[in-house]
Amino acid sequence: MDLATIDPPAPAATTSLEALETPCLVLDADRMDRNVSRLRSRLDALGVSLRPHLKTAKSIEVARRFMSAPEGPATVSTLKEAEQFAAAGVRDMIYAVGIAPAKLARVAELRAKGVDLVVILDTVEQAQAVAEASRAAGMRIPAMIEIDCDGHRSGVVPSNHAQLLEIGQVLRAGAELRGVLTHAGDSYKGGGVEAQQRYAEAERLAVVEAAQLLRSADLPCPLVSVGSTPTAHHAKDLAGVTEVRAGVFVFFDLVMAGIGICQVDDIAVSVLATVIGHQREKGWIITDGGWMSLSRDRGTSKQAIDQGYGLVCDIGGNTYRDIIVADANQEHGIIAVRPGSGARLPDLAVGDRVRILPNHACATASQHAAYHVVRGRSHAVEACWPRFGGW
Amino acid sequence: MDLATIDPPAPAATTSLEALETPCLVLDADRMDRNVSRLRSRLDALGVSLRPHLKTAKSIEVARRFMSAPEGPATVSTLKEAEQFAAAGVRDMIYAVGIAPAKLARVAELRAKGVDLVVILDTVEQAQAVAEASRAAGMRIPAMIEIDCDGHRSGVVPSNHAQLLEIGQVLRAGAELRGVLTHAGDSYKGGGVEAQQRYAEAERLAVVEAAQLLRSADLPCPLVSVGSTPTAHHAKDLAGVTEVRAGVFVFFDLVMAGIGICQVDDIAVSVLATVIGHQREKGWIITDGGWMSLSRDRGTSKQAIDQGYGLVCDIGGNTYRDIIVADANQEHGIIAVRPGSGARLPDLAVGDRVRILPNHACATASQHAAYHVVRGRSHAVEACWPRFGGW
Repeated sequence: MDLATIDPPAPAATTSLEALETPCLVLDADRMDRNVSRLRSRLDALGVSLRPHLKTAKSIEVARRFMSAPEGPATVSTLKEAEQFAAAGVRDMIYAVGIAPAKLARVAELRAKGVDLVVILDTVEQAQAVAEASRAAGMRIPAMIEIDCDGHRSGVVPSNHAQLLEIGQVLRAGAELRGVLTHAGDSYKGGGVEAQQRYAEAERLAVVEAAQLLRSADLPCPLVSVGSTPTAHHAKDLAGVTEVRAGVFVFFDLVMAGIGICQVDDIAVSVLATVIGHQREKGWIITDGGWMSLSRDRGTSKQAIDQGYGLVCDIGGNTYRDIIVADANQEHGIIAVRPGSGARLPDLAVGDRVRILPNHACATASQHAAYHVVRGRSHAVEACWPRFGGW
Repeated sequence: MDLATIDPPAPAATTSLEALETPCLVLDADRMDRNVSRLRSRLDALGVSLRPHLKTAKSIEVARRFMSAPEGPATVSTLKEAEQFAAAGVRDMIYAVGIAPAKLARVAELRAKGVDLVVILDTVEQAQAVAEASRAAGMRIPAMIEIDCDGHRSGVVPSNHAQLLEIGQVLRAGAELRGVLTHAGDSYKGGGVEAQQRYAEAERLAVVEAAQLLRSADLPCPLVSVGSTPTAHHAKDLAGVTEVRAGVFVFFDLVMAGIGICQVDDIAVSVLATVIGHQREKGWIITDGGWMSLSRDRGTSKQAIDQGYGLVCDIGGNTYRDIIVADANQEHGIIAVRPGSGARLPDLAVGDRVRILPNHACATASQHAAYHVVRGRSHAVEACWPRFGGW
């Protein structure tokens, strides 16, 4: 008896949604392609390039479908992503999380293999660490200065001229100053088209002002990078900006639909789950799609429409009106009618399958090891694209 | 140039917390051992056996430290767990999520290899599916009837005699009726010692009543299984119960501390993170420990003490009083003083390391591929135990 060889049955190259093990992650490639085309057309018209953020996808198959070229440019959120995508041929990446000094050895190792990996930072200490690591590795590691455009998280405020110039000078002297970068995290709060246009303009102004300051001090600033999915879809003018970063737009999710950046029917990822029981007196359908497969993300809980742990569709991806995953345990999802909606629970038997649209595509996708690829209403699974996690 | 070989540096067999890549998961084995001894002593005194739930651990190294024997018994939440633990020698498992008919082929495959894997169900349709799969596989697949003791999720209410008996008869005729099982999910709400004792007694009564009904109809009921970490720590009498299931007790977490089941200093898992910046005017320390490493679980948000995304400790595991991860993005954690506490932010520089105690051990551990094992205040990492995810 050789139990060590037992593995869940691997899905065939082509199979059907009815034959997949549940819960699992389904990707509607038609919707994905449409989402990519939409943003690309928008940015082409604005004359800036797209540097897609690959943290949502974590899959080279997906990445190749929304990068401009197989070599990039791209944005990553971990060194694991940088290493995985480098191994698949991506050569131009920004690691867009403030660099920890202990990570610079891995950065230098990738750069030594011909990958133009750029780090970001917002302190003089980090700039000194990059200079020191550059000396140690016998190369100039490029870094961008993170700018704070909205008080959301990290970055130097553009009015802090002294700090911007000091960081710039340390990088020029001992490493390489590649430019400035910001992210309008506050844009995820929504607020309508005009608010989004203001967020986008604040994002642009913050980096353009910082770039002007650096250049006026004879410091180089080739890259001027902005980005968030909401602002990328609302910017009216990107004068002075060289590139836009965005990630979640490739799949979209209920949070993005809730702030009006997409429609529910644009959401390209869903979790396939199987009905495992009913509590009919309570109006509950129980499935095997719990928070382990949906993630604990409750990003719509403070939006106008709370989608619970996700919005329920039939196996073909047709949304049931006002039917949500009202609660979730680790491997149990509780489907119910949205309170106050007056909707009726669909008639689903034990063994029937549903698809759950996620609150937050990045969080939900991260719970899975692969995308099962379908197109439109078809139940045929065309491909299984692996994805990775970790750091 | 061979980029396909690039991998993050594998940790040496023994290393130190200062040398690990961050973020990563740290397990204090001293705390784990103490947590296991505590519950084992309790259940020994009550005369029932422990069937630990391995869904929190998802690691054979951890499982071996809290199962009674290498063969089990154990509880699992996915067939992936059943297959992985079977491959490592576990032979007695309950898959404690209502069975989906399409999963019975995998169950039969494991049983054919000598693993006593038991399923659970709460509908006649599922019992019929188990009987059908038994016929197809030429074996009797054992199933337990899930009992609803508190209206929390799944199960047949004990007063629904007709349904209990019908399920029991279908199983006896075409499969195997192994017993009854319940889970007091409502006990996670807390409410103090007396409330927990009531939850535990309600759990016991529900299964004992169901077992009596089945036996009075000449149906077998060898296993009478209860379990949740809170009730396992509060039951005063388990007469009629044959076994207790519990899982999160092996690590504990802030949710369990918040309802008084453990102390904060009992929590055995934490996320090691590195400081990557400051926003001093706002009182923020930024780390690389975002929600991807901590999980999106906000289980303490409705408790008396909201721990944000986790409670912050120094690298040696000493808790900073009232310092929490106040907010988190995918790869950023924002450390701040708990509002209203009057505490002072610790003096941490870029590159310093902290450990974050999680709200929910199951959710946080699931974001990681390994445990880095330490003991007590030591910074020495004794071992790296792999863990798995998926279904």
